[in-house]
Amino acid sequence: MATKAKIIIVGAGFGGVAAAKRLAGSDADVTIIDRRNYHLFQPLLYQVATADLSPADIAWPIRGLFSRHRHIAVVLSEVTAIDPKAREVVAGDRRYPYDYLILATGSSNFYFDHPEWEPDAPGLKRIIDATEIRKRILLAFEQAEIATDAAEQRRLLNFVIVGGGPTGVEMAGAIAELAKVTLARDFRHIDPKSARIVLVEAGQRLLAGFATDLSDYARHCLEQLGVEMMLGQPVQAVDAAGVRIGEIFLPTATVIWAAGVKVEGPGQWLGVETDRGGRVAVAADLSVPQYPQVFVIGDAAKVLWEGERLVPGLAPAAKQQGRYVADAIRARIEHRPPPPPFRYRHVGSLATIGRNAAVVDFGCFKLKGWPAWWFWGLVHIYFLINARAASLVLLQWFWAYLTRKKGARLITGLRPLFGASEAKTKA
Amino acid sequence: MATKAKIIIVGAGFGGVAAAKRLAGSDADVTIIDRRNYHLFQPLLYQVATADLSPADIAWPIRGLFSRHRHIAVVLSEVTAIDPKAREVVAGDRRYPYDYLILATGSSNFYFDHPEWEPDAPGLKRIIDATEIRKRILLAFEQAEIATDAAEQRRLLNFVIVGGGPTGVEMAGAIAELAKVTLARDFRHIDPKSARIVLVEAGQRLLAGFATDLSDYARHCLEQLGVEMMLGQPVQAVDAAGVRIGEIFLPTATVIWAAGVKVEGPGQWLGVETDRGGRVAVAADLSVPQYPQVFVIGDAAKVLWEGERLVPGLAPAAKQQGRYVADAIRARIEHRPPPPPFRYRHVGSLATIGRNAAVVDFGCFKLKGWPAWWFWGLVHIYFLINARAASLVLLQWFWAYLTRKKGARLITGLRPLFGASEAKTKA
Repeated sequence: MATKAKIIIVGAGFGGVAAAKRLAGSDADVTIIDRRNYHLFQPLLYQVATADLSPADIAWPIRGLFSRHRHIAVVLSEVTAIDPKAREVVAGDRRYPYDYLILATGSSNFYFDHPEWEPDAPGLKRIIDATEIRKRILLAFEQAEIATDAAEQRRLLNFVIVGGGPTGVEMAGAIAELAKVTLARDFRHIDPKSARIVLVEAGQRLLAGFATDLSDYARHCLEQLGVEMMLGQPVQAVDAAGVRIGEIFLPTATVIWAAGVKVEGPGQWLGVETDRGGRVAVAADLSVPQYPQVFVIGDAAKVLWEGERLVPGLAPAAKQQGRYVADAIRARIEHRPPPPPFRYRHVGSLATIGRNAAVVDFGCFKLKGWPAWWFWGLVHIYFLINARAASLVLLQWFWAYLTRKKGARLITGLRPLFGASEAKTKA
Repeated sequence: MATKAKIIIVGAGFGGVAAAKRLAGSDADVTIIDRRNYHLFQPLLYQVATADLSPADIAWPIRGLFSRHRHIAVVLSEVTAIDPKAREVVAGDRRYPYDYLILATGSSNFYFDHPEWEPDAPGLKRIIDATEIRKRILLAFEQAEIATDAAEQRRLLNFVIVGGGPTGVEMAGAIAELAKVTLARDFRHIDPKSARIVLVEAGQRLLAGFATDLSDYARHCLEQLGVEMMLGQPVQAVDAAGVRIGEIFLPTATVIWAAGVKVEGPGQWLGVETDRGGRVAVAADLSVPQYPQVFVIGDAAKVLWEGERLVPGLAPAAKQQGRYVADAIRARIEHRPPPPPFRYRHVGSLATIGRNAAVVDFGCFKLKGWPAWWFWGLVHIYFLINARAASLVLLQWFWAYLTRKKGARLITGLRPLFGASEAKTKA
């Protein structure tokens, strides 16, 4: 019998993990390489940013997911190059040979060719982003409380969210609830209820991926929560002082970026064609035309749907692609006929807005209000990785629902003036 | 009627919070100043370092504790000076006047006049210390897994804990269980069970504050867990390569400091007498002899007990002192006779070693083994701040007890080579 096929998966997001799970029963040697040691349940990441949940509630060590599968190895390392001719992945100071390669590296925030905006407008991609945003939001209230200058106090209580997709809507709603309910009685010199939360969207409506009536409903709910919306208004500039939107300059210390993504990595590593967003053009079986042993899935791949639309950057899409390429690779290894071309099945779109308010769009089936909110909660609990995570999240949601308090209001990573230095970075 | 008395409390640890709670019913204006926004349940901090709990499980926003008390304000700021003649505290760019001042600033790690050891041997004082230690422990296993040099791999699997008090014993036991049980099946190229965990103590026995038979029991339990102990051995040097102990050089990438504390702040701010560890000598009512309106409590105060022993740096001691000075201040404000001199009541000492192993020393009443372990757990759950925290911690302990898995195995704060920069520090 021949030696076992070597399969490398780069990235342990929804797509990479789905592929690895599907390969668990195969006879191949599988290696997962990721620059983080955890798989992140991204749909709830905004709740870490708004102090509802802790990072460990929505992230799990990748190794732990595959403990029982001896032929699946996990490597914490960062891929820096790929040699598709030699069929090797370069990560750290090592080279990892492969027979089949799955690139599931996801996307990062895109600042419309203004990378200099990033330090003042963090996005929501990694745990460290979420804890940084949490720190900025809570610190803005703290600094406003002790500010001696009225204009600066006013500026600190302005919060700007850029992007009216699900993440932007969820962040805006959650910050509004934080200010108007959770923190309402906690300060003595400011009134947190006076905070301005501004949601800026370049397009003409919120939640462009949803039906129009659901967009309108989301807008109405956010208005009820006191969120100001600026639609059809692209952001012109961001810096430490604030945000410029058309003719308006909005002074603020807290800008949250939820406006666009780009793909880095696979296109450059392989030297192949990408679209403007960096997505790699793939064949009908999600392989790269020049390198049929290399597959690109999830956010990193340019896959079309119903003719001309891009498959959305959602967890179900990445999972479907992960399972598909796992099957395609197994078919090749086991000399079976390949599966039919990949076809995306759109399940639906969900977004939560605030307490008892959410929208669900399944095409033929739409929900809004509290039924949608409960449905949203059930779906997210259902897809959490295990019973421990589900019960921890449930317990915290339940507590927050009853008391309207948020449990994870920690500002970590402050630099002290005095005493031991905070940053003791070694690795 | 005269204007309300202004009371400032610096530090929201066990002592500061106990004082503020006791003052909740008073007619004074109370301001709590802390450089963190959270009150930390320090006794369980080591469980964050060993991936058992999340920071938000054991830390709560100080504001949230006093929401209902309108006359208690909380200021997130760092005290840099005190002007005891003008009766003002300087923090940030503001001055806060006081009639009475309570300094409850705690202690930091003491490196025996070798502050240069600190970056390579973090202690366990703050949340960021705990997540840093967690990162180093988990990263050592990850790097060993992909190391190509056998000596380096061996070095990465050595873990050294300096200090054989409760924190050192708890850390050693927890790291041993992490290596030998939790991670046992998670790696493919190393055997985590082969990790060496070395506990170094300068004195002749572990847990010097406990009865001798309990020290012996702790030693026996740690031996069972595979922990190596070096007693009567002071550490000579620490650097990035390892630790020197007498004639031995132990190569390691992970050193954890649990060996001693020092006090910074109050003594210098006031320009008053301190002992070698920086503790301020206080009068019988815990006030500073030169400045009777200023009180020092908790780790920062030099308070004697049974003649010549220093009151231990434990939560109950700080709480007793916090309540005592609150009463002393109220008596002065309300023109009542002062309470009798402060007298420390020692409740007991507890330390956990590992699964089903702990020691409890109440003087007349001693426990070890599983009854001590369950007692330890109950006591800690009981003293957590509220039902939410208690239920979250219970749920995680229960899950870990059943599955022997740890939930918070996240390595956060890694610096990527590629993509957006990890450190987006603004504040």
